[in-house]
Amino acid sequence: MSSDRLIYLPLGGAGEIGMNAYVYGYGKPGKERLILVDLGVTFPDMDTTPGVDLILPDITWLAERRDRLEGVFITHAHEDHVGAVAHYYEQLGAPIHARAFTANIARAKMAEHGHPDTAVRVVSPWPETVTAGPFTVGFAPISHSIPESSGLVIDTPGGRLVHTGDFKIDTDPVVGEPFDREMWESIGADGIKAMICDSTNVFSEHAGRSESSVGAPITELIQGRPGMVVATTFASNVARVKTLAEAGVRAGRSVCLMGRAMNRMVEAGKQTGVLTGFPATIPPEEASKLARESVMLIVTGSQGERRAASAQLANGKYNGITMKEGDTFLFSSKTIPGNERGVIRIMNQFSEQGVDVIEGDDRYHVSGHANRPDLDAMHKILRPQILIPMHGEHRHLREHVKLAKSNRIEGVVAVNGMMIDLGGNAPKVAEYIETGRTYLDGSVKIGAMDGIVRDRIRMALNGHVMINVIIDEDDAPLGDPWVEIMGLPETGRARAPLVDVLEEDLAQFMGRAGDKTLADDDKLEQGLRRVARQSTQTETGKRPEVTVVISRLTE
Amino acid sequence: MSSDRLIYLPLGGAGEIGMNAYVYGYGKPGKERLILVDLGVTFPDMDTTPGVDLILPDITWLAERRDRLEGVFITHAHEDHVGAVAHYYEQLGAPIHARAFTANIARAKMAEHGHPDTAVRVVSPWPETVTAGPFTVGFAPISHSIPESSGLVIDTPGGRLVHTGDFKIDTDPVVGEPFDREMWESIGADGIKAMICDSTNVFSEHAGRSESSVGAPITELIQGRPGMVVATTFASNVARVKTLAEAGVRAGRSVCLMGRAMNRMVEAGKQTGVLTGFPATIPPEEASKLARESVMLIVTGSQGERRAASAQLANGKYNGITMKEGDTFLFSSKTIPGNERGVIRIMNQFSEQGVDVIEGDDRYHVSGHANRPDLDAMHKILRPQILIPMHGEHRHLREHVKLAKSNRIEGVVAVNGMMIDLGGNAPKVAEYIETGRTYLDGSVKIGAMDGIVRDRIRMALNGHVMINVIIDEDDAPLGDPWVEIMGLPETGRARAPLVDVLEEDLAQFMGRAGDKTLADDDKLEQGLRRVARQSTQTETGKRPEVTVVISRLTE
Repeated sequence: MSSDRLIYLPLGGAGEIGMNAYVYGYGKPGKERLILVDLGVTFPDMDTTPGVDLILPDITWLAERRDRLEGVFITHAHEDHVGAVAHYYEQLGAPIHARAFTANIARAKMAEHGHPDTAVRVVSPWPETVTAGPFTVGFAPISHSIPESSGLVIDTPGGRLVHTGDFKIDTDPVVGEPFDREMWESIGADGIKAMICDSTNVFSEHAGRSESSVGAPITELIQGRPGMVVATTFASNVARVKTLAEAGVRAGRSVCLMGRAMNRMVEAGKQTGVLTGFPATIPPEEASKLARESVMLIVTGSQGERRAASAQLANGKYNGITMKEGDTFLFSSKTIPGNERGVIRIMNQFSEQGVDVIEGDDRYHVSGHANRPDLDAMHKILRPQILIPMHGEHRHLREHVKLAKSNRIEGVVAVNGMMIDLGGNAPKVAEYIETGRTYLDGSVKIGAMDGIVRDRIRMALNGHVMINVIIDEDDAPLGDPWVEIMGLPETGRARAPLVDVLEEDLAQFMGRAGDKTLADDDKLEQGLRRVARQSTQTETGKRPEVTVVISRLTE
Repeated sequence: MSSDRLIYLPLGGAGEIGMNAYVYGYGKPGKERLILVDLGVTFPDMDTTPGVDLILPDITWLAERRDRLEGVFITHAHEDHVGAVAHYYEQLGAPIHARAFTANIARAKMAEHGHPDTAVRVVSPWPETVTAGPFTVGFAPISHSIPESSGLVIDTPGGRLVHTGDFKIDTDPVVGEPFDREMWESIGADGIKAMICDSTNVFSEHAGRSESSVGAPITELIQGRPGMVVATTFASNVARVKTLAEAGVRAGRSVCLMGRAMNRMVEAGKQTGVLTGFPATIPPEEASKLARESVMLIVTGSQGERRAASAQLANGKYNGITMKEGDTFLFSSKTIPGNERGVIRIMNQFSEQGVDVIEGDDRYHVSGHANRPDLDAMHKILRPQILIPMHGEHRHLREHVKLAKSNRIEGVVAVNGMMIDLGGNAPKVAEYIETGRTYLDGSVKIGAMDGIVRDRIRMALNGHVMINVIIDEDDAPLGDPWVEIMGLPETGRARAPLVDVLEEDLAQFMGRAGDKTLADDDKLEQGLRRVARQSTQTETGKRPEVTVVISRLTE
C-alpha cells in the first residue's frame, strides 16, 4: 500500500506570466485531497488569439476531481489571480477563500454571473487559518501593488509550504501592510518544506524600491507643469492611485478619477477599510469647468487598452474633457511586453494634440514584484528545503532555480502540467498532466486546440474563398460554380476580377470532371478546393482558405 | 506670375519609423521639378495588417507627376530606405542613384523583379555630385549602422539643403567612414537653408556610443562561456557582424554565418570593397562537427522573425545544429517596439533547451542613430536656418522641433503629406497631399483603405458565417438554407450545433418571408444576414461576418 504524498501541480502561471492556478494535494497517490491557489485569467492578443475575450486555464483535470477539492484560495485581487473564479465556479463548486478586499472584488465578479455571495468566504489574516481537508491555510500579509496581498502559509502533514503569491519587500507601501520580516522569520522558524515563489523580476539586478519613493517626484513633476495633468496607472494599484491623488492635491489641484475600473477599485478599498484618507475628488463634469492648471485627472488605460479612459482621451474627448497644448500625460506604470504598440499609439496621438507625455521614467513608477536581491532575501528569511519558482515564463523560472542553487536550496523548474512530488529531500516529477488554455470567446468557452481560433488566424492571413455548386438530380452541374471572396484582392495578375477568373477556372474543372467525381461530394470538394487555391495563388500569390458548398437537388 | 519655390514633401517616414520617401521640388508652383530621397518599406503586423507581406508608401501623387521626377536618391541600404525601389520602378521610371554598397543591394532587388541593372547608377561620395534638373546632389559620408550611409547635400537655386539620412556621430565605426566633422563644417560653412534630420533617438538623453565600444565586451563574454556561442544582430549591420566574428576568433572559435540575409550582406560588403579583413568563416556542415566550445555562430533573426535562423534554432534545429544546455545565445541588438513577443518567445524556447540568453544588455549593442546630444551637435555643426525633423513618429518629430528651438533654429513638424514651402525665413505649409500606405499582399498591391485587410481583421475577430439559399423559377425557396461556419464555436448556448440552430432560424425566416422579399436579392440577403448575426450573437455572444449566396434557378 502506497503512502501519502504531498504534491504541487501548476495548471496555469508556471511558464507564463498570467492565469495563475496552482493545485496542492495531500493523500494517497490518485486520491489526494486538493486545494487550488488562485484562479486567474490572461489577456488575448491579435497575434495568437484574435477575437478571444479572455484566456482561462484549462481546469479539466481539476473539474474531473472536484469531489476531492477542499477549497479555492485567492492570494490577491489582480485579474491574473482572481479573474476566472466566476467563470469556473460551476465546474469546481468549492468555496472560495480570500481576504476582505480580494473577496469584495471576487464577489462582484460572482454577482455578474449570478453566483451566490456566500460562495466567497472572507478570511482574517495570519495567524488565523482556514482548515481545508488535510491543509491548514493562513493568509500572511505581504506587500505588493494591491491591498491585502497575502502569501499563503500552507501546513500539511508533509510539512509547511509557503506560497508567496505576488510580492515585493516594501516596508512603506503607502496603502496596506508593510513587509513584516519578523513575521516571515517566525513563519519559517520551524522549517519550510517548500517555498513556491514569485519569479517575475528575477532578472532585475538592483534592489527594489518602495512605493513610497514615487510620491515626492510626482508632486514635483505636477507642480512644474502649466496645463492639465493626467496620470494613468493600473486601476488596482490603489496605493499608486492614492499617491497620485495626494500629489495632485499637494500641487494645488482638484483631482478627478476616470474609468470604471479605477472608481471600482477605490470604492472597494474604501468599503473594506483598507483605503483611508483618500483625498476628496471631483466628478468629471466639474473638472471640465475648472481652469486647466487646477485639474489633475487619474485615469485607466496604462497599457493602451482601446476602450480605457487614456485611449479615449487620446482619441479626442472623454467625459467632456479634451487635452490641449501645454497639458501633461504621465504614465505612472510600466508597459507590459506585448502592449508597446498600443501605448505608443496613444503617445503619438497626445503628441499630435501638443500634450507632453512622460513614459518609462523610473522616478514615477516602481514595480510590485521582488527584484533579484529581494528574492534572495526572501530565500534567506524562509530557508526552505525546496524552492519552486512560479509566476514566470520559462526563462524566469530557470533563472530563479539558479538563484536558489546559489543559496544551496534545491529547486526545480515546474511548468504547467508538471505534478511535483514534494515528499523527498528534493522535488521530483510525479506525473505529467494535460493542461492548456481555454478561451472565453464571446459567451462560449472553447479549447485552445479546437481549431476555431486557428481558422480565424488563417482567414486573416490568407483570405477566404467560398464556392457554391449546384448538382441536379442526374449528378450534372446546374449552372456554373459561384464564387464569393472575402479578404482577397479584387483583381490579380490577369487584371480581371479575381472572382471571374476563379469562376471560369472552376467551371472548366467541372466541365472536365468525370461522373465519378460529380457523384462524390468529397472528391468534388477536394477538386474544387485545389483549383481555387491554385488559381488564387497564380492570380494573387496567396493560398486562401476555401469553403465549398455543394447543393444537390433531389426529386 | 508666381515665382519659383523650394518644397519638401514627405510621402513616408515622417510620423512613423519606416517606409521613408521624401520628395523635394523646385520650380513654379505645380510645375516643380522633383527628386525623391529614399523609397523604403515598413513591415506588417498581425494587429493591423494580417497577411500583408510588405507595406509601401502610397506614391500615387508622385507617379502622377513622373514626368517631373528627375531622379531617386537612396541614402543607404536599409529596407526602410531602399526596400521599395524595385516595387515602384515601373511607376516612377526615374534613374536610381546610390553609392556602391547601396547600389549592390538595390540592384539585387531590381534583378528579382526583372528590372535592368542600369536603372541603378553608382555615385561617388561628396565632393562629387549628381545633377538632377535644378538640383545638385552630393552623397556625403555619414556614420550609421550600415556601410556607405550618406547624408545628402542638395544644392538648389533656393539654397543648400542637407538631408541627413539615418546617422550617428561615430568617429570609429569599425567598418566604413568615420564621422567627419570638418567635412560637415565645410558643407555648412556658407549657410544651410534647411536640414532635414533623423529624429529616431531624440529621447535618448545620453551621448551615443561608438560601434567600436562593443568589441571588447563581446570578446570577454565569449571567452567566459563553456558551450557554443550564438549571436544575432541585424544582418545589414556589417560592422557588428565583423565585430562579432572577430570576437569569436579572438576567443579561439571558428565562426559560421547563418541566414540568407547575413551572407548576402557580407557578400555585398566584400564585393564592393567596404568590408575588408573579415575573418575566415566555416560552413554550417563543418560547424556541426566541431566541439561546441570551438564554435561561434552569427545568425539572422534578432527581431524574433519566424523564418530567420534564430527562430529555427529556437524551434530545435537549423542547418544540422541543435543548441544545448551550456550554450549561450546573445542578442547583439535592440528589440524594436512591437517585436517583443517574438523575441520573448525565442528566449523562452532557448531557456527550455538550457541555453543562457543575453538580451537587452547595453554592453553588447549600440544604436545606429544619433542620440539627443549628438543631434544637438549636428544642429551646431550645420547651423541650418530651418530644421525639419524626419525619420520619427509624431512624438519624435515634435521633440526634435523643441530641441531645434532651444538652438534658436526654426523648426516644423511636417508629417507625411504635408508639403512645406522652404522659401521664406520660416517653413510654412503649402499644401496637404493625400498619402497613405500601399500593401504588397502576396503578389498584388492593394490600398490600405480598400477594405480587404479590414475584412480579414473582421473575420479574425468575429468569425465567418456563410449562407446558401436556392430559389426556384417561381421565386420559392428550394429546400432550406444551408449554413457553413468558419472561426466560430461549434456549439453555443443551446448546446446544439450552431450550424443547426442557424439553419433552423434562417428556415423560419424564409418561411415567414413574403413574396416581395423572396423576389428581391438585396432584401433577402439583408434579412438572412440580420437573422444570422442575431442568432449567432444569442448563441455565442459574437456578431460574425456573414456572406450570403442566393442561387436562383432559371428555366
